[in-house]
Amino acid sequence: MDKNEEKQREEEREQVVSPWEVSSSGKIDYDKLIDKFGCQRLDQSLVDRVQRLTGRPPHVFLRRGVFFAHRDLNDILDAYEKGEKFYLYTGRGPSSEALHLGHLVPFMFTKYLQDAFKVPLVIQLTDDEKCMWKNLSVEESQRLARENAKDIIACGFDVTKTFIFSDFDYVGGAFYKNMVKVAKCVTYNKVVGIFGFTGEDHIGKVSFPPVQAVPSFPSSFPHLFSGKDHLRCLIPCAIDQDPYFRMTRDVAPRIGYHKPALIESSFFPALQGETGKMSASDPNSAIYVTDSAKAIKNKINKYAFSGGQESVELHRKLGANLEVDIPVKYLSFFLEDDAELEHIKKEYGAGGMLTGEVKQRLAKVLTELVERHQVARAAVTDEMVDAFMAVRPLPNMFD
Amino acid sequence: MDKNEEKQREEEREQVVSPWEVSSSGKIDYDKLIDKFGCQRLDQSLVDRVQRLTGRPPHVFLRRGVFFAHRDLNDILDAYEKGEKFYLYTGRGPSSEALHLGHLVPFMFTKYLQDAFKVPLVIQLTDDEKCMWKNLSVEESQRLARENAKDIIACGFDVTKTFIFSDFDYVGGAFYKNMVKVAKCVTYNKVVGIFGFTGEDHIGKVSFPPVQAVPSFPSSFPHLFSGKDHLRCLIPCAIDQDPYFRMTRDVAPRIGYHKPALIESSFFPALQGETGKMSASDPNSAIYVTDSAKAIKNKINKYAFSGGQESVELHRKLGANLEVDIPVKYLSFFLEDDAELEHIKKEYGAGGMLTGEVKQRLAKVLTELVERHQVARAAVTDEMVDAFMAVRPLPNMFD
Repeated sequence: MDKNEEKQREEEREQVVSPWEVSSSGKIDYDKLIDKFGCQRLDQSLVDRVQRLTGRPPHVFLRRGVFFAHRDLNDILDAYEKGEKFYLYTGRGPSSEALHLGHLVPFMFTKYLQDAFKVPLVIQLTDDEKCMWKNLSVEESQRLARENAKDIIACGFDVTKTFIFSDFDYVGGAFYKNMVKVAKCVTYNKVVGIFGFTGEDHIGKVSFPPVQAVPSFPSSFPHLFSGKDHLRCLIPCAIDQDPYFRMTRDVAPRIGYHKPALIESSFFPALQGETGKMSASDPNSAIYVTDSAKAIKNKINKYAFSGGQESVELHRKLGANLEVDIPVKYLSFFLEDDAELEHIKKEYGAGGMLTGEVKQRLAKVLTELVERHQVARAAVTDEMVDAFMAVRPLPNMFD
Repeated sequence: MDKNEEKQREEEREQVVSPWEVSSSGKIDYDKLIDKFGCQRLDQSLVDRVQRLTGRPPHVFLRRGVFFAHRDLNDILDAYEKGEKFYLYTGRGPSSEALHLGHLVPFMFTKYLQDAFKVPLVIQLTDDEKCMWKNLSVEESQRLARENAKDIIACGFDVTKTFIFSDFDYVGGAFYKNMVKVAKCVTYNKVVGIFGFTGEDHIGKVSFPPVQAVPSFPSSFPHLFSGKDHLRCLIPCAIDQDPYFRMTRDVAPRIGYHKPALIESSFFPALQGETGKMSASDPNSAIYVTDSAKAIKNKINKYAFSGGQESVELHRKLGANLEVDIPVKYLSFFLEDDAELEHIKKEYGAGGMLTGEVKQRLAKVLTELVERHQVARAAVTDEMVDAFMAVRPLPNMFD
């Protein structure tokens, strides 16, 4: 097989990235995804600009390229530089009780954005989506939404700047009017092109994209943004959500709003290796925020795919393949100390450090993270959930 | 052309009856419609039963076959006979400011049903539907909904038993949850089969059928029917709405509700003749509730299709063709005196009475009706509209 054939074969490898499926026979090719989706690469100059504008060091997810793509982030920053604030919108489909580390990534990053830019945030819990896609009952979807809200709140959001809502609670009024306005602008053929629905899919699926679209428009939140129809919106999310917002951006100017800007992350890989997102259906593919220190240690030791060599001798000689090594990948998400990370990569890559040592370091980092989360979550009361989810004005949200 | 060919030709004549289009090259064949839709004929024994159960003479629309078809009306009456009440649900798509007489038919009949059975009533104003189908703005659709509510209230509904709502105001909460439950049960292929949508139709159309379906379920109105999930629903409507409720009846048992029962009317014909519904786009095809006595007289004289003969001599000899005569048809809707109607039909059919005389009688009947409506509507204040549309319990709705 010559080089060209190889390349062709590679290109033919299935790489599916949609809001409901992320799969690939090899590593996800994020460059290809940027090309396919038509978004922009988040380059160093943009990271530097964020640092300059916010006066604080960029989040580890930003400086290490976890958030690697964007749409119109420059426009948001141009406006911000002129003194024009914006709001953040992110969300979660509450399909499972326990979140894993991959679920925390967008929320940890959004918390940083909220603090750095001092802007309000709306968080959508799409319990209606999960009720429809996962065939959960309305009640179970709502229960999961509330449980997930506790984990989200535990990430440290500012209640004076944050509105969390579940679709089953909140759809109606101005939000529903915007859903209708969006739905009028999108043909069935268009959603088939974007989302790949078939005639055998139920109409709930066809009806849903406007529900995820309209939090991008300030008028969907009259208790927050009344009279601020031209407020811009920035959406931090994983790149599999891009199809929703391509549709949203297409519609926005036709109904009188700015296109929402996006800042998009790669996927947090499964313990077994970097071929997609972690799977909620396989508990051994992920570290959960409910895992004990022992469970974390065991999962890492047993399942984390190693780039180390088969024997200590060989490893000392060849070093680890950092490209495929999951412990190093995980550390690059959660070990904040740049110098230490560089040290590990250098030593491990040269064979001076063994997989066991790296895994041990990772277990410590993740245990600290998870235990910190567990303490924070245990402190989230039902009253706090009610407070975040109350439909209320936020008088100091731009301070 | 022999008889068989003629019959075949006749059957090939396009007869389209959908929620958005009613057209036919000849008279609508209602028998064929009953067969096609699979509903039941409302026969004399059922009319007698309604009379017996309510202890009052059946409405003129019932005894003259204007409401001519039904689904499961017997079940509603069986339950009613055992002391089990039900609720009524009807609606209107507010696409125009002024209603014509055809628009009043379901409301006049629903008012009779409410009085005769002493049951609560919900009236849906589908401003969202009209916003999507007629490309009206949200604001204009809502304005029309409120204007139409005034005409509806002028029909004499009991505010202690009636809840009028606009979708833009009311969609949300329990109503939205039921929309999602319905949408989960209906595939895109299914709605295409029922409603004939195409891929070029916008997804607002695909999303709408559940909105019209869910008022059939008592839990959509927790302020009225909390804890009464097994309350039955009877829907008076024109037969073009049957597709929505075929879908609703299909879904109902799968999500734990009774199938709604239906009582369905034929269409009030245009002045120009009985080939479909009146058209809102041709003001000369209909008598509007805003028309003056003079306008009514002129429209009837100028446009009402006559079954009379071309000359007085011929008319005296042959008599009128009552089958195609619009003045007689209109009188059969609105002249309440059975004896007088029979007299007119006999005399006019035999040539003893001329078209001009019949038209004069009709003008008097309609002018009285319209002027009575105008007086009633002028008395409807904004406060009354607010009262009917307030989301509130109706403690005496079953008395």
